[in-house]
Amino acid sequence: MSNHIYKKIELVGSSPNSIEEAVQNAVAKASKTVHNMRWFEVVETRGQIENDKVAHWQVTLKIGFTLDPS
Amino acid sequence: MSNHIYKKIELVGSSPNSIEEAVQNAVAKASKTVHNMRWFEVVETRGQIENDKVAHWQVTLKIGFTLDPS
Amino acid sequence: MSNHIYKKIELVGSSPNSIEEAVQNAVAKASKTVHNMRWFEVVETRGQIENDKVAHWQVTLKIGFTLDPS
Amino acid sequence: MSNHIYKKIELVGSSPNSIEEAVQNAVAKASKTVHNMRWFEVVETRGQIENDKVAHWQVTLKIGFTLDPS
Amino acid sequence: MSNHIYKKIELVGSSPNSIEEAVQNAVAKASKTVHNMRWFEVVETRGQIENDKVAHWQVTLKIGFTLDPS
Amino acid sequence: MSNHIYKKIELVGSSPNSIEEAVQNAVAKASKTVHNMRWFEVVETRGQIENDKVAHWQVTLKIGFTLDPS
Amino acid sequence: MSNHIYKKIELVGSSPNSIEEAVQNAVAKASKTVHNMRWFEVVETRGQIENDKVAHWQVTLKIGFTLDPS
Amino acid sequence: MSNHIYKKIELVGSSPNSIEEAVQNAVAKASKTVHNMRWFEVVETRGQIENDKVAHWQVTLKIGFTLDPS
Amino acid sequence: MSNHIYKKIELVGSSPNSIEEAVQNAVAKASKTVHNMRWFEVVETRGQIENDKVAHWQVTLKIGFTLDPS
Amino acid sequence: MSNHIYKKIELVGSSPNSIEEAVQNAVAKASKTVHNMRWFEVVETRGQIENDKVAHWQVTLKIGFTLDPS
Amino acid sequence: MSNHIYKKIELVGSSPNSIEEAVQNAVAKASKTVHNMRWFEVVETRGQIENDKVAHWQVTLKIGFTLDPS
Amino acid sequence: MSNHIYKKIELVGSSPNSIEEAVQNAVAKASKTVHNMRWFEVVETRGQIENDKVAHWQVTLKIGFTLDPS
Repeated sequence: MSNHIYKKIELVGSSPNSIEEAVQNAVAKASKTVHNMRWFEVVETRGQIENDKVAHWQVTLKIGFTLDPS
Repeated sequence: MSNHIYKKIELVGSSPNSIEEAVQNAVAKASKTVHNMRWFEVVETRGQIENDKVAHWQVTLKIGFTLDPS
Repeated sequence: MSNHIYKKIELVGSSPNSIEEAVQNAVAKASKTVHNMRWFEVVETRGQIENDKVAHWQVTLKIGFTLDPS
Repeated sequence: MSNHIYKKIELVGSSPNSIEEAVQNAVAKASKTVHNMRWFEVVETRGQIENDKVAHWQVTLKIGFTLDPS
Repeated sequence: MSNHIYKKIELVGSSPNSIEEAVQNAVAKASKTVHNMRWFEVVETRGQIENDKVAHWQVTLKIGFTLDPS
Repeated sequence: MSNHIYKKIELVGSSPNSIEEAVQNAVAKASKTVHNMRWFEVVETRGQIENDKVAHWQVTLKIGFTLDPS
Repeated sequence: MSNHIYKKIELVGSSPNSIEEAVQNAVAKASKTVHNMRWFEVVETRGQIENDKVAHWQVTLKIGFTLDPS
Repeated sequence: MSNHIYKKIELVGSSPNSIEEAVQNAVAKASKTVHNMRWFEVVETRGQIENDKVAHWQVTLKIGFTLDPS
Repeated sequence: MSNHIYKKIELVGSSPNSIEEAVQNAVAKASKTVHNMRWFEVVETRGQIENDKVAHWQVTLKIGFTLDPS
Repeated sequence: MSNHIYKKIELVGSSPNSIEEAVQNAVAKASKTVHNMRWFEVVETRGQIENDKVAHWQVTLKIGFTLDPS
Repeated sequence: MSNHIYKKIELVGSSPNSIEEAVQNAVAKASKTVHNMRWFEVVETRGQIENDKVAHWQVTLKIGFTLDPS
Repeated sequence: MSNHIYKKIELVGSSPNSIEEAVQNAVAKASKTVHNMRWFEVVETRGQIENDKVAHWQVTLKIGFTLDPS
């Protein structure tokens, strides 16, 4: 944890089931192009309503990852 | 999604079990008087503690719905 | 609920499973030294990522408790 | 205090005398159409100045009330 | 401007052309059910993109109106 | 209320007695150099404690006044 | 006022009468365990409504006090 | 752009036509007493409604100008 | 609108003419490297002043686009 | 520290070396026209980059000073 | 870094020399009563001005420490 | 400074010595992949504590750079 530099990106994950799953889906998607992910921060939680029920949880999050080799 | 106008109302849903269920309860209650609900935004998450345990999750949310016939 | 005075403390609870469990863990820990807890407010939700998965949910919350005998 | 759902409305009360009276005036006015009011939250305090004196205190507040029969 | 009480509602207006027109559309729609509107406050400006162009300006605004006869 | 331009200045008023008096003191002081004051907005309320009592209420406020002759 | 270090704690004071009294009550209560209190900052003002009247003013405040002997 | 010091003032411009014109009007008015204006920042956008239409756009902005000779 | 994941980027668009055109310019520029743009959110509006007139409108916005094939 | 009234002005100081020096430069500049300065508050820290290095630290601060003779 | 619970306290450190030293002074002071400190967050930076110079840097910070044995 | 479009990225720089050096380290790291950097904005300042001392200053900043050739 010395002089590392981190970059943060902002994503919106979604899930029909839960806030946690929406975050997990975003992290899983990001893992295809980003390496060395270290933490996330939830920025906003919202969702879509269809037929009087929550149809999708949409969670905006920031993901921090190391820029240098760890 | 043309020139629609939406109205947003603010509710507090509660549940003894989870944040998601508190939101669902608020949406279900609102559906009795509001139609064409489209999305929600979580504004605040809090709750009550009884006997050293979380007794109720209380989630403040805004619900947006279409004012014109869809 | 008359002229009570409350104090609020700020904790960070964590859990490998869910946001709700992270809050419950913080409340359980606080109950060892604080009595008459009445409510909590979620301040921030974040977490750590290991091996491209959410390893820990970390929830910052404030807990309010009564200073006078109830 | 079980699975209640609350609705919040936003009002601006005013008074020539004090912040407290401006809030009381808004609550009194709201009581003519809203029942089961439970709490309020002050959002903003401002006012108008006439002849170099505060002529009106204007307090924006949110009022929460129960949607279900209590 | 004596002891008036105002209520504020939150709307989202939209327009394919401009921010101003999105606000005007929301005010015009609200005028069908709300009387004595006095002011508005822009809360958020966003929009939708289609085919690499802004397709709709969406402006969230609060409208204040007098509750008592003016 | 046509094409007026207003300027806002930020002051801190204080009073040993109340929030309202702290605001009034700031407005009275400002009136010695500023004319055509129209409204104020409370930005922050704080104070000093001496001997376990509130010794001074300190209210930060913004005052708006007309730049053109009214 | 040299190299002092201060600690801040967060309390909620309440009063049936006024915002100022709610703050005074919190300061008075804190004085039983905290010494060298120097200032307070109002964080939030809210209250409870009973029978269509404000029953309790509840003011969240932070109190700063000196950690070193003064 | 060396060791310049800037001062910022807060104005409210208004216009019956558009947000942009309200800003321009404020800048034009400020130019009569302030020199070396360099930038502005929009702080708030609101307006007045008359006869169910937007009668005035009111834009609060901060203007930054150089204190030293440029 | 199923389990899509979105990414958000932050841009500053500028225009000598209007806020809307500054947004359009940013979207047009982004379209050269980003596909499937879906929405934008205005974060900040500011601008530069030259010769006592607004020379450039500068709008900071976030653009959201789909990461998966739509 | 009795019934003093304070005014706050907003400045941007800059320095090629450090945040502290940028603040000191702003205070030094203000001292040429403002007397009885008592405190400052840092509002924002930013800077300019030239040739891949920080060329100027720019600190926005508010300065409070006494309006009455002390 | 498993299921740890952290507590956060809020302090104000001061120093005549720099922001960094003000933070260090607060951490040093806290170390006399708090163990297992892990991180800090700067909440606010301000200071006092005497004789037209910055006399004290005052930094409000939160310090997080582990509640369980590490 | 005509119709330029800028992009902003968010980084976290760290340094064992100072806030300024943490920013410089982030800018230096970014310069390996980003060109035409123009300004930065400090978003958050925090750090890690080891053995009762600040071990690392961690500064979150946004860096703005030109998208078009300058």
